[in-house]
Amino acid sequence: MPKRPAAKPPAVETFPNPAPKREYVIEFEVPEYTAVCPKTGQPDFGTIRIAYSPDRLCLEMKSLKLYFLSYRNRGVFYEAAVNAILDDLVASCRPRWMEVSGEFAPRGGMTANVTARWPG
Amino acid sequence: MPKRPAAKPPAVETFPNPAPKREYVIEFEVPEYTAVCPKTGQPDFGTIRIAYSPDRLCLEMKSLKLYFLSYRNRGVFYEAAVNAILDDLVASCRPRWMEVSGEFAPRGGMTANVTARWPG
Amino acid sequence: MPKRPAAKPPAVETFPNPAPKREYVIEFEVPEYTAVCPKTGQPDFGTIRIAYSPDRLCLEMKSLKLYFLSYRNRGVFYEAAVNAILDDLVASCRPRWMEVSGEFAPRGGMTANVTARWPG
Amino acid sequence: MPKRPAAKPPAVETFPNPAPKREYVIEFEVPEYTAVCPKTGQPDFGTIRIAYSPDRLCLEMKSLKLYFLSYRNRGVFYEAAVNAILDDLVASCRPRWMEVSGEFAPRGGMTANVTARWPG
Amino acid sequence: MPKRPAAKPPAVETFPNPAPKREYVIEFEVPEYTAVCPKTGQPDFGTIRIAYSPDRLCLEMKSLKLYFLSYRNRGVFYEAAVNAILDDLVASCRPRWMEVSGEFAPRGGMTANVTARWPG
Amino acid sequence: MPKRPAAKPPAVETFPNPAPKREYVIEFEVPEYTAVCPKTGQPDFGTIRIAYSPDRLCLEMKSLKLYFLSYRNRGVFYEAAVNAILDDLVASCRPRWMEVSGEFAPRGGMTANVTARWPG
Amino acid sequence: MPKRPAAKPPAVETFPNPAPKREYVIEFEVPEYTAVCPKTGQPDFGTIRIAYSPDRLCLEMKSLKLYFLSYRNRGVFYEAAVNAILDDLVASCRPRWMEVSGEFAPRGGMTANVTARWPG
Amino acid sequence: MPKRPAAKPPAVETFPNPAPKREYVIEFEVPEYTAVCPKTGQPDFGTIRIAYSPDRLCLEMKSLKLYFLSYRNRGVFYEAAVNAILDDLVASCRPRWMEVSGEFAPRGGMTANVTARWPG
Amino acid sequence: MPKRPAAKPPAVETFPNPAPKREYVIEFEVPEYTAVCPKTGQPDFGTIRIAYSPDRLCLEMKSLKLYFLSYRNRGVFYEAAVNAILDDLVASCRPRWMEVSGEFAPRGGMTANVTARWPG
Amino acid sequence: MPKRPAAKPPAVETFPNPAPKREYVIEFEVPEYTAVCPKTGQPDFGTIRIAYSPDRLCLEMKSLKLYFLSYRNRGVFYEAAVNAILDDLVASCRPRWMEVSGEFAPRGGMTANVTARWPG
Repeated sequence: MPKRPAAKPPAVETFPNPAPKREYVIEFEVPEYTAVCPKTGQPDFGTIRIAYSPDRLCLEMKSLKLYFLSYRNRGVFYEAAVNAILDDLVASCRPRWMEVSGEFAPRGGMTANVTARWPG
Repeated sequence: MPKRPAAKPPAVETFPNPAPKREYVIEFEVPEYTAVCPKTGQPDFGTIRIAYSPDRLCLEMKSLKLYFLSYRNRGVFYEAAVNAILDDLVASCRPRWMEVSGEFAPRGGMTANVTARWPG
Repeated sequence: MPKRPAAKPPAVETFPNPAPKREYVIEFEVPEYTAVCPKTGQPDFGTIRIAYSPDRLCLEMKSLKLYFLSYRNRGVFYEAAVNAILDDLVASCRPRWMEVSGEFAPRGGMTANVTARWPG
Repeated sequence: MPKRPAAKPPAVETFPNPAPKREYVIEFEVPEYTAVCPKTGQPDFGTIRIAYSPDRLCLEMKSLKLYFLSYRNRGVFYEAAVNAILDDLVASCRPRWMEVSGEFAPRGGMTANVTARWPG
Repeated sequence: MPKRPAAKPPAVETFPNPAPKREYVIEFEVPEYTAVCPKTGQPDFGTIRIAYSPDRLCLEMKSLKLYFLSYRNRGVFYEAAVNAILDDLVASCRPRWMEVSGEFAPRGGMTANVTARWPG
Repeated sequence: MPKRPAAKPPAVETFPNPAPKREYVIEFEVPEYTAVCPKTGQPDFGTIRIAYSPDRLCLEMKSLKLYFLSYRNRGVFYEAAVNAILDDLVASCRPRWMEVSGEFAPRGGMTANVTARWPG
Repeated sequence: MPKRPAAKPPAVETFPNPAPKREYVIEFEVPEYTAVCPKTGQPDFGTIRIAYSPDRLCLEMKSLKLYFLSYRNRGVFYEAAVNAILDDLVASCRPRWMEVSGEFAPRGGMTANVTARWPG
Repeated sequence: MPKRPAAKPPAVETFPNPAPKREYVIEFEVPEYTAVCPKTGQPDFGTIRIAYSPDRLCLEMKSLKLYFLSYRNRGVFYEAAVNAILDDLVASCRPRWMEVSGEFAPRGGMTANVTARWPG
Repeated sequence: MPKRPAAKPPAVETFPNPAPKREYVIEFEVPEYTAVCPKTGQPDFGTIRIAYSPDRLCLEMKSLKLYFLSYRNRGVFYEAAVNAILDDLVASCRPRWMEVSGEFAPRGGMTANVTARWPG
Repeated sequence: MPKRPAAKPPAVETFPNPAPKREYVIEFEVPEYTAVCPKTGQPDFGTIRIAYSPDRLCLEMKSLKLYFLSYRNRGVFYEAAVNAILDDLVASCRPRWMEVSGEFAPRGGMTANVTARWPG
């Protein structure tokens, strides 16, 4: 499987927060994340976890699913993927805060996790 | 299954707190929560967890069960349901504080949790 | 099984703390707690957990077991039981601090936990 | 919630078995089964498991999901539900054999499972 | 707590088997079994599991719960309890076959299980 | 993601069995199986398990990994995939016997497993 | 800790089987078994499991506990201990059959289990 | 088994800390702790956990094992044992800080944990 | 790490079976098996499980540990290792029967198990 | 297996941090760590966990794997190994902070963990 240039993923849609005055937390777990290693062209697998506190907008789940689907044939390193997901989702919904983590399947007897948070 | 307008759920009954001078914590876990997705008309499933510190009143368990039963055929999004449950239960028992969270069954390979707290 | 008036449970015996100068922690887990629901007359089941830091006295385990045995046929609500256990054990051993929690078996698809602490 | 007469559930659709000469096994797990107790009108919850060996036809998953959805507001006992599901699915796909089991959520501190098989 | 003579437990009610022509299996798990040790007067705790194939009659769950409640203050050894439960339930519903097992809480660092089956 | 015609997957390489006189068992677990649903175009995820007893040839692991990689963008139903994998691997190594099973991630609150064996 | 000669363990007491006509099964789990390695003088730890079908006599639990206590300072290998326990308990209660197994704590990164049955 | 006077346990040996300038943490888990109850003469079992930050000296593991072996036939209560272990090990290695906890096997349906820390 | 020629592993010592007339079972679990992949020179990791029924001789555990240690720097495939271990251990103790299995750590997202038995 | 002098392990390579302005966390789990005990010459096994926040450089995973491989035949104590790994990896990538912990397999019934952090 050849490496592919990183096409722009689709924007994630939003809907109005039903309780905009309250600071509360929404979490998503995406155990079906998969992308391609830019170095080896082999698929990577992992679980992405998102936690955020909405301000005026909430992330729409179906749209979020399509966003992750766009990673399926993209070549991206673990560290870059987690940071890009955080940047993209913050840009979509402008939350009070957001944290994104990736727990990646073992490769060569080693497991990797990456966790990033906005604001830093 | 058609979407239904959100009928008012029944009020949750209370009884006097047996230790009103002590700040202590009561938790309920409701693994049999189910409602209807307002977008697709399909049933949603989840576990609702409530934690609160009673002031003068405690939530009565049987009445609480009937309250959750009223969600069974109601169309409501995850984010709205958790916020509405928090509002309704705070109105019933006027606690020192309360936290409500919902952990919803996977849809499209994705799991969602929502957690809200009063006072915010 | 009829409701019974709440007879006074036996006092819990103590022994001298072997390290009275050190603030340390003792925990007990009692998975065999059972009492009677005052409303329905049906038995309730649960696990009681106690954590405390002894001052001059330690709770004696065999005596503690007999104390819990006295709840077997007593009618008492969850919230009242946890607060009464805390009051009784604090009175017996006058600890630096104590926390008592009860995790009760599901009834009507719902689980309840109650946690109280002295001093409040 | 009143008891409802047992309306006929929708027929489950099928598609041609891709390997009709081989005796192999297909299993489905449906953790979101819910129905109504005909005696108390209260909702029941459970997990239904189906195992079968297809002959000329396979059960179609989306249609199967709608079939179970039709139980949501129906009044039916555990023992009757499992036997009816087995009868309905055998009638739809005429398998070599089929086994249906239901594992129901605890009621009154007691859990029930029912398992039936065709041909008996 | 004094030993008590073994009063006769209440008969377990039944209802007509909805699928009397099919040999199928019904299982109950009763994690809240408790009785009294005839030797020490101390309470015993355990989980009773019942599996049977109904003939013309099924065991009614609420009645079964009351049957087990009658053991709460009765003095009976593990081996005798499991055999008596099997005899009583077989007499109530005359099944095709039945198996009863008890898994009892540890005493003196030792755990005991007893399993009996009818016909032997 | 559009449906794609089912291109022929690569042949799985083999190496000589080091103990051809002994009937023994080799098992592989492939938790990173992913393909595309031919109906919806959405990705499916699952774990494939293979057990076989080699005759003169053993399946080579790296080659087996590439074989599964070829499913990544192919449109195939669960039942067809498991049967095709069994056919392909039996053709590669001509084992004494082989069993292939697939345990697929939940869709619409329902999980599916498919298991096939050769010879049938 | 010096090696000690293998003193005769105490006989295990019995009581009359309450259901002597039925062939049923009694199991004990003893997670607190400890003895001394005859080679190194170091303590060994393990869990002993006993399963038997009583004939006219049942093993008495308190007496069984004392029997295992007698191993505490005795020097005995795993294989010899399991076989001796089986011989002693069969001699005490003359069961229909009995199985004894020992699951011993890891030594040098290796775990050992031994299982023996009477009649052989 | 008679109660024995509490003979002095052997001193625990030490070796020079390889990184004396860094404050770091060493933990040991000893699941094979056993002693004798001074009241009943019956053996007690438990898991001891030690966490400490070395200053100039580290505890030597083989010597630590012999130290715990000396408890095997000593009569000591839970609360006294944990405090004595903490005192002895602090005296041996003079750490920056140390915490010792004991999690003891259930007796009479009740489990006990004791945790102490130096400096208090 | 270069590939190394397969030096002969040391013979495994034995001791006389303490119960030679009884057919019983001894099992060992070796979770610290490691060898070198002959193709890549990279280390492999796995758990080896041995089950056998001794005839006149039992495998000595310390000697068995040294036997497995000899694989540490040897280049050997999974299938060959399991068959060689079975051959070597059968030659050492001439059991009634023996089974050896290896469960190897994931490589490239795939796990492998190999199981062999004597006599075949 | 003789003790070997501690040869210098290979340097761990790095690549530029894709999000150098954000303070985020990268974790690796290495369950296949093995080294040699300098005292006994026997192999030690353990799981090493690394967590760090990159500054300008990230640790490259394949190079990290080779670094750990260099410990395979080196004689090193637990406490020294964890401190050396921390020193080496900090020197390679100059992170904002790093924590290294080792959880080592049980020896003589005792488990050891060591955890160190930079800056101290």
